[in-house]
Amino acid sequence: MSDKTEINNTYIEEVQALIENKESSELINIIARLHIADIAEIIENLSVKHAKYFYNLIANEEDSATVLIELEDDTRENLLENLSAKEIAAEVIENLATDDAADIIGELAEDKKEEVMSHIEDIEHASDISDLLCFAEDTAGGLMAKELIKVNKDWNTVQCLKEMRKQADHVKTVYTIYVVDDDDKLLGLMSLRRLLLTERTTEVKNIMFTDIISVKATENNEDVANIMQKYDLVVLPVVDDLGRLLGRITVDDVMDVAKEEAEKDYQMASGISEDVESSDSVWELTRARLPWLLIGMLGGLFGAKVIGIFDLERNFELACFIPLIAAMGGNVGIQSAAIVVQGLSNDSLKIGSVFRQLIKELGVGLLNGMICSLIILAAAFGLGYSIGLSITVSISLLAVIVFAALFGTFIPLTLKKYNIDPALATGPFITTINDVLGLFIYFWIGQAIL
Amino acid sequence: MSDKTEINNTYIEEVQALIENKESSELINIIARLHIADIAEIIENLSVKHAKYFYNLIANEEDSATVLIELEDDTRENLLENLSAKEIAAEVIENLATDDAADIIGELAEDKKEEVMSHIEDIEHASDISDLLCFAEDTAGGLMAKELIKVNKDWNTVQCLKEMRKQADHVKTVYTIYVVDDDDKLLGLMSLRRLLLTERTTEVKNIMFTDIISVKATENNEDVANIMQKYDLVVLPVVDDLGRLLGRITVDDVMDVAKEEAEKDYQMASGISEDVESSDSVWELTRARLPWLLIGMLGGLFGAKVIGIFDLERNFELACFIPLIAAMGGNVGIQSAAIVVQGLSNDSLKIGSVFRQLIKELGVGLLNGMICSLIILAAAFGLGYSIGLSITVSISLLAVIVFAALFGTFIPLTLKKYNIDPALATGPFITTINDVLGLFIYFWIGQAIL
Repeated sequence: MSDKTEINNTYIEEVQALIENKESSELINIIARLHIADIAEIIENLSVKHAKYFYNLIANEEDSATVLIELEDDTRENLLENLSAKEIAAEVIENLATDDAADIIGELAEDKKEEVMSHIEDIEHASDISDLLCFAEDTAGGLMAKELIKVNKDWNTVQCLKEMRKQADHVKTVYTIYVVDDDDKLLGLMSLRRLLLTERTTEVKNIMFTDIISVKATENNEDVANIMQKYDLVVLPVVDDLGRLLGRITVDDVMDVAKEEAEKDYQMASGISEDVESSDSVWELTRARLPWLLIGMLGGLFGAKVIGIFDLERNFELACFIPLIAAMGGNVGIQSAAIVVQGLSNDSLKIGSVFRQLIKELGVGLLNGMICSLIILAAAFGLGYSIGLSITVSISLLAVIVFAALFGTFIPLTLKKYNIDPALATGPFITTINDVLGLFIYFWIGQAIL
Repeated sequence: MSDKTEINNTYIEEVQALIENKESSELINIIARLHIADIAEIIENLSVKHAKYFYNLIANEEDSATVLIELEDDTRENLLENLSAKEIAAEVIENLATDDAADIIGELAEDKKEEVMSHIEDIEHASDISDLLCFAEDTAGGLMAKELIKVNKDWNTVQCLKEMRKQADHVKTVYTIYVVDDDDKLLGLMSLRRLLLTERTTEVKNIMFTDIISVKATENNEDVANIMQKYDLVVLPVVDDLGRLLGRITVDDVMDVAKEEAEKDYQMASGISEDVESSDSVWELTRARLPWLLIGMLGGLFGAKVIGIFDLERNFELACFIPLIAAMGGNVGIQSAAIVVQGLSNDSLKIGSVFRQLIKELGVGLLNGMICSLIILAAAFGLGYSIGLSITVSISLLAVIVFAALFGTFIPLTLKKYNIDPALATGPFITTINDVLGLFIYFWIGQAIL
């Protein structure tokens, strides 16, 4: 493991050339100089065949197991497919912390899962992993690791240090020491620093901090991320319903959750339905994007029907402002929905304040709507369109903006109420509804005025 | 400081009622039971007058200083405006770590800044803060704190422990111990655990880890966030150009950066130009949204011009599919731009691979375009539109999707190349361009065919 390296295109091309020429000794030297995260980044940028060759050159078993954790799901799957259950157990699982091990086993096919479990030699490790596999992936239990250092409240600091030496083998990074009673109930915590700076015969219960924040194992992982972020926690203990200590979640696991969540919301808003990256294949990218495009098309066909209902032939000049009305409805709807989705996801918007938020959006919609409709009135008339058409566009725009703002607020709040991901309401979905609704308002007003 | 509390609307209304009845002793009890982060959340949800009353009831000076850090900028400004420079120095700054203190002073007006600095009694604290104020807010130097524990490479563990006791007063959480040489150059680090478990006469240089990741003070804060996330770091040392240890950045500071960045990208994509939250005022929300709406309107006016150029009166049925063409161009453009923006922001897309990414988007565009254009051909003809119109819509749709995909990829990559935030290219901007372009393609093909 080493310092960070800048992995750019040139670097990857050099590695590719070395792989093609089978310069394994040179590659082994490179790997020895690289940090695990950089090895993973290089593998992500190689073809499957090259990736396998490169991966097999990692000499240290612990390193090659850890690299797997840093990879995307599909890359990991490719690298694991050639390994037997026994190899996975001995070379990968035994070298990983319980949370990472459980993640990897959880991804395997059901029959392979059991086979791998049966090959883990360290019985305690196997039982810990099997405990973790019981929790749903998106809960605190699914995030936590079993590795932690715990001491009994009645011990003194000397006993603590002794016990810690015993436990510390399994625990890579000690953030904090948990204090439990005889029933394993979590009572408090103690920092290493405190242990280091206190007299050796003091009992733990006298020096522990008792104001602790913990979560239940069933807590949703987004809530866990919000709690760790809000209270600035580096590590968070997980307890069962009786308050007994089960495991701990570290901030690095949660950073990924928070980031994935934000990226997912963003992708939803942009009309991308699966978690994709620019490095994914053309087919994956197409598949992730097609569903929203089909929704957009359906909306477009509805739009065509709406236009068809009205007598466009007599008022064909109305057609000129179709794009403007449709676009503005979509834009305003997306803005409103984005504010709601973001407020819900970072917990700053409380569910139950639906009515208050709608009133506020009504205000924003009216204000934006009036400004825009006045500008468009002047602009359209100034550009030489008839006064009738200019007034039609202006009034319609106000109505469309207000409706779109209310719709964009109401739909995600309603989805959330029924436990559906509110981010669904952003992006093409809301745009499409507002497009159709906007056209209807526009033509209806147009026919009344013109 | 205490356990976490669920702050919901009912809770806030109860607090409001207590404030209005001036039940200060009851409120003081409540505050004593609350975690700092929860006190801050309550204050964010109160009116300015109520917030000031509530804030002044926080008995512990260290707590009231820390609450300020957790607040939004404008709330903090409101609470600080009544305090004199001397009060800010004595009650707030003296109770905060250097990084937080520097953030607060950095937000003050220029003349107040100097006055507050002159009132800080702890000379060392003042000089540390003044060092930090030299760094730009969005760099590693602007994020770091000066508080850290460092030991000399030649000391043994006994000397280390002695020195740590001296330094530990200033450092709230000890994540790691930095090892430096006589010139303060960062050589390695040591965990408390290692110090705890090693024999007392061993020299530090023999037990330190030397594979360390550090950043320069001038490094951009988004890069710092990416580095900490990639290498799973809880704390990251900051050095100057000569490798001398300047400070440390902890993961909680960086989590905010990563989150703000993701939220900013999302807001940009949704057409919101300032950092707003659902709790902001109607006017703030309006102002943040208006600029993009104006861009959308401008696009709409261009669209009207494009439609006006063509002889719509003769082919008025073309108007029916204007919404479909415009919407699809917008949707595809947003999808493509989102993938590029996200790839750039999490560093998975390398700049320099523009050409490769464009080729890939061409593939995705062609694939999506062909699927959509075949469906629309069948659907339009099936719904009774003329074969000419159906073919026009189908061919235009293919062209629009391919163009929008290329545009959506090209524009953010180009912006990034010139160091402009690529997120600008998502949302209303790209939609508007694609709307106009799409209409042009559509009518041009329509006139050729019909």
